[in-house]
Amino acid sequence: MSESTAFSYAALLAKAAADPVKIGNRPRRGKYDFAVAYPDPASLPLEELTDALGQALAEEGRDLAIYAHPQGYPPLREWVAEKLGRERGIHITADDLILGDGSGQPIHMLIETLVDPGDVLITEDFVYSGTLNQMRRFRADIRGVLTDEAGMLPDALESVIQKALREGKQPKFIYTVPTHQNPQGWSMSLERRQALVALSQQYGVPVMEDDCYVDVRFEGEPEPSIYELDGSGRVMYVSSFSKVIAPGMRLGYMTAQRDLLERALGAKSGGAVNSFAAFAIHRYATGQLPVHIEEINKIQRIKRDAMLTALEAHFGDSGATWSRPKGGLFIWLKLPASADAVAVRDKVLETADVGYLPGPGFAPDGVSGRNYLRLCFGYNTPEEIGEGIRRLARAFRAEGTI
Amino acid sequence: MSESTAFSYAALLAKAAADPVKIGNRPRRGKYDFAVAYPDPASLPLEELTDALGQALAEEGRDLAIYAHPQGYPPLREWVAEKLGRERGIHITADDLILGDGSGQPIHMLIETLVDPGDVLITEDFVYSGTLNQMRRFRADIRGVLTDEAGMLPDALESVIQKALREGKQPKFIYTVPTHQNPQGWSMSLERRQALVALSQQYGVPVMEDDCYVDVRFEGEPEPSIYELDGSGRVMYVSSFSKVIAPGMRLGYMTAQRDLLERALGAKSGGAVNSFAAFAIHRYATGQLPVHIEEINKIQRIKRDAMLTALEAHFGDSGATWSRPKGGLFIWLKLPASADAVAVRDKVLETADVGYLPGPGFAPDGVSGRNYLRLCFGYNTPEEIGEGIRRLARAFRAEGTI
Repeated sequence: MSESTAFSYAALLAKAAADPVKIGNRPRRGKYDFAVAYPDPASLPLEELTDALGQALAEEGRDLAIYAHPQGYPPLREWVAEKLGRERGIHITADDLILGDGSGQPIHMLIETLVDPGDVLITEDFVYSGTLNQMRRFRADIRGVLTDEAGMLPDALESVIQKALREGKQPKFIYTVPTHQNPQGWSMSLERRQALVALSQQYGVPVMEDDCYVDVRFEGEPEPSIYELDGSGRVMYVSSFSKVIAPGMRLGYMTAQRDLLERALGAKSGGAVNSFAAFAIHRYATGQLPVHIEEINKIQRIKRDAMLTALEAHFGDSGATWSRPKGGLFIWLKLPASADAVAVRDKVLETADVGYLPGPGFAPDGVSGRNYLRLCFGYNTPEEIGEGIRRLARAFRAEGTI
Repeated sequence: MSESTAFSYAALLAKAAADPVKIGNRPRRGKYDFAVAYPDPASLPLEELTDALGQALAEEGRDLAIYAHPQGYPPLREWVAEKLGRERGIHITADDLILGDGSGQPIHMLIETLVDPGDVLITEDFVYSGTLNQMRRFRADIRGVLTDEAGMLPDALESVIQKALREGKQPKFIYTVPTHQNPQGWSMSLERRQALVALSQQYGVPVMEDDCYVDVRFEGEPEPSIYELDGSGRVMYVSSFSKVIAPGMRLGYMTAQRDLLERALGAKSGGAVNSFAAFAIHRYATGQLPVHIEEINKIQRIKRDAMLTALEAHFGDSGATWSRPKGGLFIWLKLPASADAVAVRDKVLETADVGYLPGPGFAPDGVSGRNYLRLCFGYNTPEEIGEGIRRLARAFRAEGTI
């Protein structure tokens, strides 16, 4: 057929069809790839996962022939329920969990279940772009709340809630990454968590707590989960194995009040989560995961320190400031107000081979924060991190960015 | 918290929220489990898949640290593109494919992209319940077309299209499982495929072709794909590895015109398909899958014959009739018109330990076909199949069903 006579689906699209995502080649990655929050590739437990899978398949591999429970492999849900009870004060059973493809699918299911076009959602002033994209896909009206080094400012949050209510709009929920926040790197203090819960309860606005970095911790102790502090069923809790095992495993989970959980399960796409990956993660998690987490956190801490040292060396006199995260996989760099990290990104990738994500990708309005960038330290070696930051500063200086 | 004071999400649900799916325990399966289309558990290539995975991880396992291409692992897409060109006359590149969680997720993505509440979708008089459920989840107006042993009757299809048009409703697409149809077991003849394409083109109604049983073939040669016969971009093609490797792998794929494919990709939930499973399937498929398909088809053929023999022995004088499929995983049993396979299902499961799915689960209106049932022969051994059919007939006789 010739392209010119091809049938067009344009007139048949649903009113709520998603915006297109370009197929084909993706933009190239930099050698110094600070753009995406990858875990350390060298410490992936590949042999251990293969062994774990082999063991699971020998024991119950015939069950691969069966369509699994729609909530996902029950023994892995039992393991997650125990972990959440022990570590996050979340006392639930395996029935209260749904496993999904990463944390992205559970987040998608909850947004789809709760959000009509124009609905107000509240989140931090800069936050995980994947969730923002899902909020946009369902045509939400996303509003950011000013943060400092301890999380959302309670007064600012209350103002945003009150403004929406004055407009006749009941906010559907507040989305937060309270621990080692993506991209800003801070963790919400206990006081701020308590204030958030108080406002949530006062105004009847539930919270979606994305806790996917809680185990990627280099120092200190975790604050209690918002779920635990609430205790009234107003918190949806989401996390994943992407940062402690590997993103390619596509294994995350969610819990929420049962009525909502059943609605979210109705929105799940593609049946039960991958049994193959769930088998391997279950066998691996029950034995070796805690030690693995300790090991990778030692490695990531060294990488964080390498990036902090390099920033001090190459950006120390630039007027830039940056976060000093106690966990997670990134540093949030603030350039002087006049700098534009968006305009020079492609050029920096081309000339310096350094990748990063500028601030607007994390902004609820999609445009604020052109003088911010997120730098992930998970992927490269400490030596490469030093060299990449050196190249980044040189490229910014060459472009007049700093 | 006490249940009585728990927060309720009821007032916050989206207008288009999915109906709830019950969490917790699922209904028990029968020992003689003819209810679900499972492949043969004993011939799952478990060691081969583990070896394939080990090989892939050794070669490129570090890439598990990376968020994969949103369309899915490129080498597996290349393999699928070659296979479809060679076997189904579908000449595309890897860029034209999206890998998803089984065929269910691609079907979900396409329905979400094309269907507004009340939109007319057309399908066979009895068809795959998973797709019907997704159509209902997006509030489609589903209309069935009368079929015989060669597929949809063209006159009946044209009448259904014309009726919708008279109502001012342009049907969004025609969904068909043309090869070893689920649940009816027939394959659409070449003439019927050509007639379907002609009507699709005449009325501008695209076709969604679900070809997931094409490789589960015991005799004869496959008819050309509807995609190939059309050649105008009006056909969306969906298939999966669930029936030739294992449902637990959750790996399927779709192709469609690029504009539509980009919209569907925007609707994908959970990021790229599981890399872990994609690695294993790719390494396995490139080497051993063709031989495996030959082997499992020999096994399934024996099982089909065992079920046909048992039906002849135990239902031969009951007034029932049944399909004699040349492939696929089930036989469609029609009891006398007054019989009610729905009413006695739970009792039969309890007393005879036999599971089956009654007709209404496959009916577009959800209620027709109470005297039909689908019997899957993939899961049990030939001996068990004989015993199960004997028990089924005895239970039906005890209940006065036949």
